[in-house]
Amino acid sequence: DAPLVVAGKEYKSRLIIGTGKYESYALNAEAARASGAEIVTVAVRRVNLTDPSQPKLTDFLDPEEFTYLPNTAGCFTAEDAVRTLRLAREAGGWKLVKLEVLGDQKTLYPDMRETLRAAELLISEGFEIMVYCSDDPIMARELEQIGCCAIMPLGAPIGSGLGIQNPVGIRIIKENANVPVIVDAGVGTASDAAIAMELGCDGVLMNTAIAEARDPVRMARAMKHAVEAGRDAYLAGRMPKKRYADPSSPLAGLI
Amino acid sequence: DAPLVVAGKEYKSRLIIGTGKYESYALNAEAARASGAEIVTVAVRRVNLTDPSQPKLTDFLDPEEFTYLPNTAGCFTAEDAVRTLRLAREAGGWKLVKLEVLGDQKTLYPDMRETLRAAELLISEGFEIMVYCSDDPIMARELEQIGCCAIMPLGAPIGSGLGIQNPVGIRIIKENANVPVIVDAGVGTASDAAIAMELGCDGVLMNTAIAEARDPVRMARAMKHAVEAGRDAYLAGRMPKKRYADPSSPLAGLI
Amino acid sequence: DAPLVVAGKEYKSRLIIGTGKYESYALNAEAARASGAEIVTVAVRRVNLTDPSQPKLTDFLDPEEFTYLPNTAGCFTAEDAVRTLRLAREAGGWKLVKLEVLGDQKTLYPDMRETLRAAELLISEGFEIMVYCSDDPIMARELEQIGCCAIMPLGAPIGSGLGIQNPVGIRIIKENANVPVIVDAGVGTASDAAIAMELGCDGVLMNTAIAEARDPVRMARAMKHAVEAGRDAYLAGRMPKKRYADPSSPLAGLI
Amino acid sequence: DAPLVVAGKEYKSRLIIGTGKYESYALNAEAARASGAEIVTVAVRRVNLTDPSQPKLTDFLDPEEFTYLPNTAGCFTAEDAVRTLRLAREAGGWKLVKLEVLGDQKTLYPDMRETLRAAELLISEGFEIMVYCSDDPIMARELEQIGCCAIMPLGAPIGSGLGIQNPVGIRIIKENANVPVIVDAGVGTASDAAIAMELGCDGVLMNTAIAEARDPVRMARAMKHAVEAGRDAYLAGRMPKKRYADPSSPLAGLI
Repeated sequence: DAPLVVAGKEYKSRLIIGTGKYESYALNAEAARASGAEIVTVAVRRVNLTDPSQPKLTDFLDPEEFTYLPNTAGCFTAEDAVRTLRLAREAGGWKLVKLEVLGDQKTLYPDMRETLRAAELLISEGFEIMVYCSDDPIMARELEQIGCCAIMPLGAPIGSGLGIQNPVGIRIIKENANVPVIVDAGVGTASDAAIAMELGCDGVLMNTAIAEARDPVRMARAMKHAVEAGRDAYLAGRMPKKRYADPSSPLAGLI
Repeated sequence: DAPLVVAGKEYKSRLIIGTGKYESYALNAEAARASGAEIVTVAVRRVNLTDPSQPKLTDFLDPEEFTYLPNTAGCFTAEDAVRTLRLAREAGGWKLVKLEVLGDQKTLYPDMRETLRAAELLISEGFEIMVYCSDDPIMARELEQIGCCAIMPLGAPIGSGLGIQNPVGIRIIKENANVPVIVDAGVGTASDAAIAMELGCDGVLMNTAIAEARDPVRMARAMKHAVEAGRDAYLAGRMPKKRYADPSSPLAGLI
Repeated sequence: DAPLVVAGKEYKSRLIIGTGKYESYALNAEAARASGAEIVTVAVRRVNLTDPSQPKLTDFLDPEEFTYLPNTAGCFTAEDAVRTLRLAREAGGWKLVKLEVLGDQKTLYPDMRETLRAAELLISEGFEIMVYCSDDPIMARELEQIGCCAIMPLGAPIGSGLGIQNPVGIRIIKENANVPVIVDAGVGTASDAAIAMELGCDGVLMNTAIAEARDPVRMARAMKHAVEAGRDAYLAGRMPKKRYADPSSPLAGLI
Repeated sequence: DAPLVVAGKEYKSRLIIGTGKYESYALNAEAARASGAEIVTVAVRRVNLTDPSQPKLTDFLDPEEFTYLPNTAGCFTAEDAVRTLRLAREAGGWKLVKLEVLGDQKTLYPDMRETLRAAELLISEGFEIMVYCSDDPIMARELEQIGCCAIMPLGAPIGSGLGIQNPVGIRIIKENANVPVIVDAGVGTASDAAIAMELGCDGVLMNTAIAEARDPVRMARAMKHAVEAGRDAYLAGRMPKKRYADPSSPLAGLI
């Protein structure tokens, strides 16, 4: 398998994990290592990256070891998101970012018009934008056309753990895309991640499924294997489904 | 995780694979190694295990390396199955066997009454019986009571690749069982195997999903990871499903 | 559409309803009328059919208007079931009966071996047996061969409302059968009943889905329409599923 | 049940049907009557409504009997759609219209930005807009805020017959909406229509599922009943789903 390439950089892992909801930075770091992820996404507005008087995430997850992907969680307008990411660039020099502009607090669905506005502005300022979006193929195409470097449709509402709700939309987005398509949000357990990859997606991003498992480190390892399994199954080309049984062994035997 | 224990022997892998439908014994062996399986099941009535003038499966899959699990594929009566397994014991000394007594050629569903009859007789003769069965919890309980060492309900018709059709029945069988429950038949792709394991099952047996993939060796590797992923996800305790979104980051941020 | 024919008698309705869990006989009767059912099934061991000092179901649901179908709910052995139905015949002259022999209290799955034993005995005594069974096509075939007049596979555990869990098994049972196949147990809402009928089944039996709805009478009417809808959809021959969109109107228009 | 109210007018039927793909206007009319629909939608760019030298749909479906709902099928820009509907108003006086602005020919997904633009313009010109849209709750909210009189999210790609792919998105749209929500596109068979209604939607629009059934008139009747069934099931309040069985009859009987 070729590596995942995002914004010109290669990654062996196709799993991106979050840094919210963990009991401690130490547990987060342990889960990150178990997951095999090379990219971790960080809410700029929440995670302490710079205050030296408090525990810092970077003390646990070395930015030399992991690609930090700042995100705009909690931003509900293009302006908020743009301001947040400019701060991130000033603070840490981050250029590759995950844009999410949310539409409301109950569904945490993206506001696609604000997302498009913010993406255009940020791209014009030299950011590399991985973009959280709805599962609408037309919007996904538009985001690619304005220069986003990865399309990240939700599989189900953020934090819901409902699994991939709209495989048809996700599949169509992937078939049309020339940049990586990474399912972002909705995964609840390992098979959900495998299903996302079996649709042909290039990667999966998740947070709650690992952070809120009873044993986050073990679930992180499960997700690592699930993503690899789904990817390999996609590349291997699955058997056709059949209406009836088909014997593994010819029914007329040797004996 | 504790190892899988069947008939007193420990296995690290929870994946059992078949030996039908492969283009060659060599490809079968390569897939077996990629899958990490330690048990391979062999149709006694079909696979050449003993004729020295023909290629022998044992030349490719060393019985020292893999546990051979003779099966009764193609048997439609208890008598057929019993005779076949007695032959297997004479020929190769196999005592641990997989019993399947089929009900018809179109569905390849087990004939549960014949299966029970055959199992009782074989157990009285000292065989260790892993038993292919329907997803009926009452029948599964009966099979355990008469002494079968593993219960192997179908997930969908043999060779159909339809995925786990009856998760409720499988889950109930597992909750009630004191011997390993191994889903046998129905897996089509990696996520199906993960789902079987997430139900709490102790293992998965498959043949067609690997043998009829476009790239059997890669699919074998996918299945290895899918089974590990599903097992770990089960043990890790998945997050609850939620009707609405749940933010990874508190919506009131630092900035 | 031809009528449903069971044991030589024609019915216009393909919905059979139960008589358990209702708040009152009056509500039960109102729901029965709203459902359009012509057959109601009655637990011989529970429902008062004969004690004149207590309210009697027959005062609310006239046996001249509804076919009473005595059932053996609560029987866990063939002997129990046979004794119960002999009593029913003595008390009310009922010959057409629904046999259920349960395997355990937690799953209420049928014990298929006891069911077969009871069915054979009852048929030899002249009963017409509609039989609750697992979704195992081989068992269903056996029940038909010994003379049952309707095969009634469960769609999901009794009272669970989980919907049709194993459409593949049910479809295969129906394709093979020469007597009516009636899904018994598992329906939770209207679409579940429609799905059962779209598989080609001849009818649906339900109790809890109506009795435990917030408004049982309205749900009874919903089920009446759902069964008719599913039947008509099956007979009408549905459109094929397509991977992509297909315009209702040619894209080159008139203007 | 209260009637469906769209743009101030009451309808008893919650099913809207299309007028494409039928073999003849006569068959279309017969199906329309069997469906009980009171609204039929008509592609302005395709259906002959005014040329007296050709068969006219209005000769078969009397505009006094059915509400004609002109639609913009085949329009890929806001300008196209607006021009088409202005023509419709001139030709037939239609003010209540269905707006669809498509994003591409393969998926027939709506282009939501063009849709919003067209909707705003048309509303400012006094049209009543029922609007085909994606299943994105934020877009749906926006369409309601600018004054659309009905929100019509797709259940699956137009003409695909895949059934309701994203029940979570549809449910959330409905929970947030103060105008009718009508699932438009994706229904393949009767149970799909029932499922849409069970989510709480106010209606369903379909074309291919009826027009391409083997027997369109019978399927139209199936859909009539399915919509009624799903609506009643929603209003009746379904039973909760349970993990295990729950006996219809107490297991300790009278006898």
